[in-house]
Amino acid sequence: MFESAELGHRIDKETFREEEPKLRAALLDTQFDFRENGKFPVVILISGVDGSGKGETINVLYEWMDPRYLSTLAFSTPTDEEQERPYMWRFWRALPPKGRIGIFAGSWYSNPIAERIRGKLDKGDLDQRMDQINRFEAMLVNEGALVLKFWFHLSKDGQRQRLKALEKDPRTAWRVTKESWARLKTYDKLQEAAGHVLRMTNTPWAPWIVVEGTDDRYRSLTVGKIILDALQKRLADTRDQNYPVAPPMAPKIDRLDVLTALDLTQTLEKQTYETQLAKWQGRLSELVRHPEFRKHSLILAFEGSDAAGKGGSIRRVTAAIDARQYQIVPVAAPTEEERAQPYLWRFWRHIPRVNRVTIFDRTWYGRVLVERVEGFCSEADWLRAYTEINDFEHELHKDGAIVIKFWLQISAQEQLKRFKEREKIEFKRFKITEEDWRNRKKSKAYHDAVCDLVDRTSTSTAPWTLVEANDKNFARVKILRTICERLEKALNTEKHSEKAKD
Amino acid sequence: MFESAELGHRIDKETFREEEPKLRAALLDTQFDFRENGKFPVVILISGVDGSGKGETINVLYEWMDPRYLSTLAFSTPTDEEQERPYMWRFWRALPPKGRIGIFAGSWYSNPIAERIRGKLDKGDLDQRMDQINRFEAMLVNEGALVLKFWFHLSKDGQRQRLKALEKDPRTAWRVTKESWARLKTYDKLQEAAGHVLRMTNTPWAPWIVVEGTDDRYRSLTVGKIILDALQKRLADTRDQNYPVAPPMAPKIDRLDVLTALDLTQTLEKQTYETQLAKWQGRLSELVRHPEFRKHSLILAFEGSDAAGKGGSIRRVTAAIDARQYQIVPVAAPTEEERAQPYLWRFWRHIPRVNRVTIFDRTWYGRVLVERVEGFCSEADWLRAYTEINDFEHELHKDGAIVIKFWLQISAQEQLKRFKEREKIEFKRFKITEEDWRNRKKSKAYHDAVCDLVDRTSTSTAPWTLVEANDKNFARVKILRTICERLEKALNTEKHSEKAKD
Repeated sequence: MFESAELGHRIDKETFREEEPKLRAALLDTQFDFRENGKFPVVILISGVDGSGKGETINVLYEWMDPRYLSTLAFSTPTDEEQERPYMWRFWRALPPKGRIGIFAGSWYSNPIAERIRGKLDKGDLDQRMDQINRFEAMLVNEGALVLKFWFHLSKDGQRQRLKALEKDPRTAWRVTKESWARLKTYDKLQEAAGHVLRMTNTPWAPWIVVEGTDDRYRSLTVGKIILDALQKRLADTRDQNYPVAPPMAPKIDRLDVLTALDLTQTLEKQTYETQLAKWQGRLSELVRHPEFRKHSLILAFEGSDAAGKGGSIRRVTAAIDARQYQIVPVAAPTEEERAQPYLWRFWRHIPRVNRVTIFDRTWYGRVLVERVEGFCSEADWLRAYTEINDFEHELHKDGAIVIKFWLQISAQEQLKRFKEREKIEFKRFKITEEDWRNRKKSKAYHDAVCDLVDRTSTSTAPWTLVEANDKNFARVKILRTICERLEKALNTEKHSEKAKD
Repeated sequence: MFESAELGHRIDKETFREEEPKLRAALLDTQFDFRENGKFPVVILISGVDGSGKGETINVLYEWMDPRYLSTLAFSTPTDEEQERPYMWRFWRALPPKGRIGIFAGSWYSNPIAERIRGKLDKGDLDQRMDQINRFEAMLVNEGALVLKFWFHLSKDGQRQRLKALEKDPRTAWRVTKESWARLKTYDKLQEAAGHVLRMTNTPWAPWIVVEGTDDRYRSLTVGKIILDALQKRLADTRDQNYPVAPPMAPKIDRLDVLTALDLTQTLEKQTYETQLAKWQGRLSELVRHPEFRKHSLILAFEGSDAAGKGGSIRRVTAAIDARQYQIVPVAAPTEEERAQPYLWRFWRHIPRVNRVTIFDRTWYGRVLVERVEGFCSEADWLRAYTEINDFEHELHKDGAIVIKFWLQISAQEQLKRFKEREKIEFKRFKITEEDWRNRKKSKAYHDAVCDLVDRTSTSTAPWTLVEANDKNFARVKILRTICERLEKALNTEKHSEKAKD
């Protein structure tokens, strides 16, 4: 992996002076072109051993390009807002939007490598995390991002010499800390861990670029040319950037499916309903104030046919929780800032801290429902979304979030009845829009989409609960009971969460 | 202040049952209208004594209105990300966008009142903070927000009874904590502090609404009706919401001004330049790594004529700082999410944490420059902006941020020369746009706007530095020297910052 980065690459002053202005001009030109026409973000990872010129390279890039459209993301100790959310949240938060270049000084690789060196991560766990990273990067690339991962390498001897040289120069002495020298001692361990990580994550969509870090001129020219080349190629390439990450759908050959199997005739009498409602609301209000919940967060995802009663159900849930502890996120069309990011970004930004609840009224499943049915995204996009969504929910789950997903199903007759009723009752009338009537006509397509999403995304960590919602009382109690039972399990007996293990 | 809230207001069940559905229907209707047509945000503050029904009222509002377009903002102990930024940052961050209702459970009033009760704030300091709050709320209202400030009142005896009643009911017992009972002992102190605060901040643009908290039905109906009424009035009122906060401009009656007074012939020879540049860059790189800087942040604001050399100057500054410690924010047209917020919101979101640097390439002064000259905002808007900007910078300063502002000035001839040069040199050509040529024609209007902004916003806490920029070397060294000198003063000898006093 590192062989050709130990050959002693050097560029003499003369050549550098000749090459630099040309490269600079081309980079600026290309960056301008990218800002105007590049409908994708660029993610540059700058990593490698201490003293290999990571900071210097970033500074050179700032000098050569228009620094106003670069941003450098540094990740030291997580802030408490970051600590109280899933690990990947801080990286999602830092992703550059379309037309921008984000330089990551430190990245999702830093923590696994550091933990591996400190012996806190066994090989199995490390590989599992690399697998998650590969899937995350595939998602980025599929969403259009150009991902360039640099690893600056130094031989052990080279590192010692670089640190000495940096220390001698008063302008760079501050870059060398006690930790830098300490890391020289763990050089071999780092090489082993990094070598393994680089091999595992050297994917076709986001390959590693190993650069020898000894000579400043060589390193700067190399990085500059690689970025220039990659940007130009990507700008010229108008093909779809999709990598296959999800298999095609299985054909439906009979009429049996999870929705038609539901018994929509189930009801709950008013008397029983009121007793049950009070019981489960009381239980829920205790659970969200349970000391154990302070290590968890709760994410409720509501999907369902139009007029299936999502709003009413959500109100029955929130009645049991203090308004300061939850947020409801109604999912509508994405904003401009959201459209400049990968699809899941707009959900990540609302992920709650521990001890908090976020209720999504419509969710990330829009991708495989309305966007699929209405053709708002390509088939490749919604096909890969199943995998991405499973990864997303797994990411949430493994850091302690409890994800509960509801599909509220009503029959076509019941829906029609409710539509007509609502048009009559004044203070509900605004809930029926032209779109609702239009959607009804596509019910077959939506039906299939729902069956597919249940099959593909009902996982042990985040199972779907299908709710028979023809009777509102029945539906509301089922929802509240499900939330309580899942919470009880997570707070008292669930021991398999990875966070709990740490 | 609290007299009519101790009369024992009550609503009987019968009346409530009759009134509630009508109010609900009207609220939902109006909320729908507001979402469709209301081009303003609604800020509702729910405050008052413990046990007066703050939480219950919020829950009732969620029940009565469409909860998807409400959000409740709760503020407990600030997170470290909040602590490391100016006090108001967390509130700016939480402001609802246009078309949304934000309910503040706890607000900018909580901390001053609490500190006053604990004896940590003398009357002078309290009044100063109330003055800042009044100015902040005036800004919100001028930006179009509807601000409703509720204070729920209970007599001392009423509070005791409410707490007992809440404790008895198993569904509400959790609302009563040890602190609730403790606060009964400080009842008189709270009344005194709150009475004073309410009087001081009872402005025409954001008056207090004191509501008796004893009876749930009375309180709910009252709050509901007030919100309904205020929303309906505001929706019907198409007049400008501006309150005069800035006096009109003084007429210019001679040709003497701060810009023409500049000596643009000043230069710096290459040799001196290089020595000086190295000296000040070295000094800057030490200062941003000084232990004292960990209590401060640095905000650099760059404004100037087109082609005045802002970009080159910024690069000379950033060369002295590690890329991980700073961010450059190029200010362009606001995004959709930014347009849904008060003008200064898009700058607040980039305010750095302590030990960090943010460099604004063009700034909040756009309001009184391009927006004024091009007529992008009304005269009332840019006139009040001077005051709002001074308040903003004062807010930053008093919590330890160091704000340094540069205006780079070049002569008309020099500008023309640079425009022409740039069109020739390939890798700089993109910097000249049609707009630049257009702006040149309005140079008189811009000239006046710059003179006004210097007069009105060069304060002792955030003075302007006018930079003679015909000679780039001279300009760059002046900028670096100014930054170093301001930093030195702030880190070693500046004792007057309010944060330092605490």
